[in-house]
Amino acid sequence: MITTTIEKPVTDAEVFAAHIGGKLAVEVTTEFGDARSLSLAYTPGVARMSEAIATDAALAARYTWAGRLVAVVTDGTAVLGLGDVGPLAALPVMEGKAAALKKFAGLNAIPLVLSTTDVDEIVDTVVRLRHSFGAVSLEDIAAPRCFEVEARLTEALDCPVMHDDQHGTAIAVLAALRGAATVLGRPLHTRRVVVYGAGAAGVACARILLSAGVTDVTVLDSRGILVPGRAGMNPVKTELAALTNPRRLHGGPAEALRGADVFVGVSGARVAPEWIASMAPDPVVLALSSPEPEIDPRLAARHAAVVATGGSDHPNQVINTLASPGIYLGALDAGATRITERMKLAAAEAIAAVAAPDLAADRIVPHSLDPRVTPAVAAAVRAAAQES
Amino acid sequence: MITTTIEKPVTDAEVFAAHIGGKLAVEVTTEFGDARSLSLAYTPGVARMSEAIATDAALAARYTWAGRLVAVVTDGTAVLGLGDVGPLAALPVMEGKAAALKKFAGLNAIPLVLSTTDVDEIVDTVVRLRHSFGAVSLEDIAAPRCFEVEARLTEALDCPVMHDDQHGTAIAVLAALRGAATVLGRPLHTRRVVVYGAGAAGVACARILLSAGVTDVTVLDSRGILVPGRAGMNPVKTELAALTNPRRLHGGPAEALRGADVFVGVSGARVAPEWIASMAPDPVVLALSSPEPEIDPRLAARHAAVVATGGSDHPNQVINTLASPGIYLGALDAGATRITERMKLAAAEAIAAVAAPDLAADRIVPHSLDPRVTPAVAAAVRAAAQES
Repeated sequence: MITTTIEKPVTDAEVFAAHIGGKLAVEVTTEFGDARSLSLAYTPGVARMSEAIATDAALAARYTWAGRLVAVVTDGTAVLGLGDVGPLAALPVMEGKAAALKKFAGLNAIPLVLSTTDVDEIVDTVVRLRHSFGAVSLEDIAAPRCFEVEARLTEALDCPVMHDDQHGTAIAVLAALRGAATVLGRPLHTRRVVVYGAGAAGVACARILLSAGVTDVTVLDSRGILVPGRAGMNPVKTELAALTNPRRLHGGPAEALRGADVFVGVSGARVAPEWIASMAPDPVVLALSSPEPEIDPRLAARHAAVVATGGSDHPNQVINTLASPGIYLGALDAGATRITERMKLAAAEAIAAVAAPDLAADRIVPHSLDPRVTPAVAAAVRAAAQES
Repeated sequence: MITTTIEKPVTDAEVFAAHIGGKLAVEVTTEFGDARSLSLAYTPGVARMSEAIATDAALAARYTWAGRLVAVVTDGTAVLGLGDVGPLAALPVMEGKAAALKKFAGLNAIPLVLSTTDVDEIVDTVVRLRHSFGAVSLEDIAAPRCFEVEARLTEALDCPVMHDDQHGTAIAVLAALRGAATVLGRPLHTRRVVVYGAGAAGVACARILLSAGVTDVTVLDSRGILVPGRAGMNPVKTELAALTNPRRLHGGPAEALRGADVFVGVSGARVAPEWIASMAPDPVVLALSSPEPEIDPRLAARHAAVVATGGSDHPNQVINTLASPGIYLGALDAGATRITERMKLAAAEAIAAVAAPDLAADRIVPHSLDPRVTPAVAAAVRAAAQES
């Protein structure tokens, strides 16, 4: 249904060719080729390094790779738009996430795919591996389990833990809405925002918008608008229903979007053009589901002043790689043990600041490959961490 | 006490310098720098790869890195000669093991250090990570727990699992004794062999020698000779006592070594020169404890026809890197799901065959950096796997 502007769609043959042997390799960064170097990096020399760390654990941060290694962890239950494909089929995506951390932030990362969907087992497994890495990027874990996994790991581990699908996306969304607000000359916090989707990304988008001072946020799941007392809500949705939807709307997307200023789609569902047409004048439409947006961006553009998607085949790509690599880099540089709300807000402001000089309706966020983004996010996150 | 022949001993400063930032890095092996390559290796293209693997799991071996990735797993309880230093202090050693797999066999490997010493928890953790790797190298796990961990993981996982400290060492020892037997013109299977040490390496050495047809093997632990009915034996030692010590010797190393032909030291204990002097004429002494051999090799050489150590600072370095990289390479190339006894024996014969043309009392094994060794071991292991 979606016709994209991309010149030459990617083919299966191209995708397969790009994946032969996988997308990652381990390289040795020290001399390891002659007897002398082996006696330093291997036995007997390595014993002195181990003894030193056994005496002073803080040395591990400097003398092992683990201190700055990101474990990319999934149970394979919410992989892209594919859903529960399991840990093996999730591997190419996790390798891609690890590759992004390397390419954008220079960080080493390894995929750890788990053959369990039990929260206790996921948490226990990662906790037991604690000394193998310096940060945890949770990926593609289905909601609402992802919220508990993230909360418990954040509590259990003295290192940065973040569920990328939640916060990477939410930070990019906040940055994009800041950009759009400036382009349109209307402050974000007075806007009526509709978040379509109450999974990992939707919940995090709603929360960060509330943190950023937006007062009128309405969230929908597949059964309609979240409102206190509605049936079929898990505890996370119940909590969100109490914090959002100040006008206590009932109904579905048609009711939610009527008169709204901003649409944030992270649902995988379809949005009808007439719902967009019913929004307030010059609305902002972020149709971020991937690979297929909630609405063809060209259709949306007939009614909306600003349109964005999650894909690289349209202007305004709102994607978590704008945020996550810089978050981990900044947090690790700062020696942070948590990713705080303050760090996330600082990351969004940093992305918005990179976009600021060139802002336009089709440039509300920087390009996903803009080399200024990750260093700017890292610097902002590091500063926010150091202030805490 | 040991004065070695090394010209310039390694210093702490050198060791530390070789370890800054750790010894490993992750590199991206596919194009990842422009919009087109990102759309193949990352979203949206990667979704097709995941879908394909979800449909046909066998594709993962070719299109992810995990199929040929070795997980180097430890609980940090028996690290080199240092003992139970814990998972964090074990990291430099595990990075060294991973580096050796890369440098010798071209295999990617990642250290996974576990903050648990409970067998059930170790097994559960590795099993849950199953799809993250293609083989498991267990390292530096204390005996007797290492035996149960290896046996249970071998049973639970459909991929190669080997405890390197056991079998890597045992294979190298068997190869060395083959070489020494040829140099001395005496068949190995008729020799009286004493294995000093009944931990991971000692048990595996005794077992592989029995597999290789040596009928007179006597094993000692710190309390003396293993003999049926002796006090203080765990189930592994009890089993070994029944299979070894055919002359039902009692006592300690003095009693065991009197008249013996071969000494294999994997104990960390000290051996008195007079015990070596009491051995049969022209004995073979493998004093393999590291960093300090059971006896100064020059003292041993006063009585022994062949002397070997585990260090690079003397001739005849008997070290598991002769065996392990080729074992994993051959097993993965063959698509083997187990490391069988037959593959281990084939590996030992392959190492011995590389040594054969240049055999001498001070060249009973190839040099640890001899580039012919790992390919030869891999080819022999692959052939043995394919025959099974």
